[in-house]
Amino acid sequence: MAKSADVRGPVLVVGTGLLGASIGLALRELGVEVGLQDISPAALHLARDLGAGTPAGPDFHPALVVVATPPDVIVPAVVAALRDHPDAVVTDVASVKGSLAGRVGEQVGAAVAQYVGSHPMAGRERSGPAAADSDLFQGRTWVICPHETSSDAAVGAVRALAIAVGALPRVMEAAEHDAAVAAVSHLPQLVASLTAARLRELPAEALALAGQGLRDVTRIAASDPMMWSPILAVNSAAVLPHAEALLASLSDVVNALRTAAAEGMGAPGVMRVFAGAIEEGRQGAARIPGKHGGAARRYAEVMVFVPDKPGELGRLFAEIGQAGINIEDLRMEHAAGAKLGVATLSVLPARAAPLMEHLEELGWRVMVS
Amino acid sequence: MAKSADVRGPVLVVGTGLLGASIGLALRELGVEVGLQDISPAALHLARDLGAGTPAGPDFHPALVVVATPPDVIVPAVVAALRDHPDAVVTDVASVKGSLAGRVGEQVGAAVAQYVGSHPMAGRERSGPAAADSDLFQGRTWVICPHETSSDAAVGAVRALAIAVGALPRVMEAAEHDAAVAAVSHLPQLVASLTAARLRELPAEALALAGQGLRDVTRIAASDPMMWSPILAVNSAAVLPHAEALLASLSDVVNALRTAAAEGMGAPGVMRVFAGAIEEGRQGAARIPGKHGGAARRYAEVMVFVPDKPGELGRLFAEIGQAGINIEDLRMEHAAGAKLGVATLSVLPARAAPLMEHLEELGWRVMVS
Repeated sequence: MAKSADVRGPVLVVGTGLLGASIGLALRELGVEVGLQDISPAALHLARDLGAGTPAGPDFHPALVVVATPPDVIVPAVVAALRDHPDAVVTDVASVKGSLAGRVGEQVGAAVAQYVGSHPMAGRERSGPAAADSDLFQGRTWVICPHETSSDAAVGAVRALAIAVGALPRVMEAAEHDAAVAAVSHLPQLVASLTAARLRELPAEALALAGQGLRDVTRIAASDPMMWSPILAVNSAAVLPHAEALLASLSDVVNALRTAAAEGMGAPGVMRVFAGAIEEGRQGAARIPGKHGGAARRYAEVMVFVPDKPGELGRLFAEIGQAGINIEDLRMEHAAGAKLGVATLSVLPARAAPLMEHLEELGWRVMVS
Repeated sequence: MAKSADVRGPVLVVGTGLLGASIGLALRELGVEVGLQDISPAALHLARDLGAGTPAGPDFHPALVVVATPPDVIVPAVVAALRDHPDAVVTDVASVKGSLAGRVGEQVGAAVAQYVGSHPMAGRERSGPAAADSDLFQGRTWVICPHETSSDAAVGAVRALAIAVGALPRVMEAAEHDAAVAAVSHLPQLVASLTAARLRELPAEALALAGQGLRDVTRIAASDPMMWSPILAVNSAAVLPHAEALLASLSDVVNALRTAAAEGMGAPGVMRVFAGAIEEGRQGAARIPGKHGGAARRYAEVMVFVPDKPGELGRLFAEIGQAGINIEDLRMEHAAGAKLGVATLSVLPARAAPLMEHLEELGWRVMVS
C-alpha cells in the first residue's frame, strides 16, 4: 500500500488481456482508480468482474494510459490514446519496441513527449483476463525504452507504475531491448519449438527414454502460437542474425554428422566440429547470470531420493524446514517409469555437509552433486 | 540387501570412471565381490580407495564383466574380456549400441552368446571416479540390447545387475535404442549447445534480461565436450536425420524472418511459417510422457512468492509439510535482479484450493497457474 502514492491516477488500461487485467488488479489493490477499455465486451466485462477496474466512458480523464493490446494493433491504440488524452502519459507493454515510437510520431505528426514505450517481462503459458493476477509482475524486470523526445515526467510515471506493481524498472534503448530479447527469449523459443516438433513422429518407446534434458529444452514449446508468431514477425530483423548464425553452426554440425556417418569418426575434422560445438555451448551457458542478475554463484547441490509415495515430499519439506538451513534453489526430477524422484537442493557450500547429515539421520538417501 | 542374491559375482568392472566406479560401489554395498581394472593407475586406486572394489589380478575369475571404458575403446575391451573370461557374461555401458555386437563378433570370430550390450541412462555433469555414487542408478532406465546370438542367461545376468543397483531394465533392439537416444538425448544436447554458443558475444545488459526459458533451454549445454563429441560421432547415422529435419525447419523460419524483416509481417506466407513452427512444437512437447512413463498427467500448479531472505524457503517447506498435502512436483524460479523467488508446486487439482488456503492463512502470497 505504501507505493500507491507514487502512481498518479486515474489510470486507463486499453486492452484487458492477461497483462492489462493484471495491471488493473494490481493498481486496484493499491486503491488507484482504473478505467478499462477493450474492443471485446466479453474480455472487458470479465476484467471488470475480476476487479481490475471499471469500463471507461468518454468522460474518463486518465493521468496515465497503459496500452496492452495485441502487438499488431499497438500503434493505432497509442495514437488514439495520445489524441483522446493529450494531458496523459501514454505507455504500451508490447514485447518488441523497435519502430513503435517512430511510427507513433509519424501519425501524431509531432515530437511526442508524453509517450514512452515499455515492456514488463512477465507472462504465463495461459492468456486472457481469466489468467490475470495482481502478483504477475512481482520481481519481474519492467524495461522502459524512452525515445528521443520522451519527457522525464513520462519516464518517471512508467517507472512509478512498474515499482507500484512490484516490478524492477530498467531503462534501455528500444534497439538494445529488441536485440536482447531476440537473443535471450525469441531465439530460445524458436529452438524449443523446432526441437519439440521433431518429437511428433517419434515412437512411444523412444519417448519413454526421455529424461530431464529433453524436458528442459522443450518446456517453453508449450507456448501459444497466436502470441508468439506476431512477436517473431515484428522482431524479425533482430532475431534474424541470431537465427542465421544458428543455422550456419547447425549446418556445420550436419555436415560433420554426414561425414562421420559415411566415413567414420576418424574422418579429418569431424571430432573438431563436435567438440567445438559442445565447448562453445559451455562457454555461452557460463555467461548466463545467476540469482540477482549477478555472475552465476556456485552453490553445492545436495540430491535427495524421494520415494513416490503420498506425503514423502511433504515430509522432506518439513524436515528440511527443521534443519534451519537456507535452501537457495531446488529442482525436482522424475525418471521415466521410476517410482522415485530426485530433489536437488542448492545450498551454500558450507551448508551442504550439515544438511546431508541432518537428512541422513532422518533416513533420507542423499548424495552431493 | 534383498537383491544381492540375484547378482552372480564376482563382478569385474573394466574402466573405473563415473559409471564403473558407481557400479562397483553399489555392488559392494550389496556384498558382491568386485574386481577393478583401469589403464589409469590413478583412477584405479581412487576407485579402490572409495570402496568400489579391489584391483583385479590375472587370477580373478568373474561371473560377470562390465566394460565401462570410454566409448571409443569399448570394442577391444569387450573382445579382451571375452577372451580372458570365456565363462563370464560380458556387458558394456556405452550410450550408443549400434554396431558394437557386430564388431565384437567379427573380432572374436564366432557367435557370441555370453555378450550383451546395455546402457544405464544415468550420468552427471561431473565425470571420473571422484563423482561416483552407489545411488547413481536409482530409478533410472537401464536399456539392454541383446543381439541375435545373446543367450537368455546373459540377458538375465545384466537384468539382475540393473535391478540390484536400483535401475529399471528395459529390453530394446540396438538400432531402436540408438534412434531413440538420438532424438530424445543427442539432438537436444546439440540444440542446447548451439543455442548457448550464441550467448558468447552478447552484451552483459542483454544477458541480464535472461529468464527461466533461456536457462531451461541451455541447462545441459554445461556438459563435457570430451564426453559428448564421441557420442555424436559414434551415433552420427541416427542423429543425422533428426539434425537434417531440424536444419530444414530452421531454414524455413530463417527465410520467413528474412522476408518479414524486408517486407513486413504482411508478406504472404510469413505468419503461416511462424505459427506453424510454434504449433508443431506444442504438439511435439505434448507427447513427452509425464511421471511414471505414462501420458502427461495434468496437475494444478500453485505458485508461491518467496522473499529471498535466509530461512524463507525452509519455512515454506515446513509449512507445506504441515498441510499434509502431497506435492507432485515443484520448480523454483528467480527473476534476474529480483529479491524474490517463485516456487511452483504441482498438486492434484482437488488439492490446489486447500493448499492455497493453508499457505495464505500463514501469510504467503500465492496464485494458481
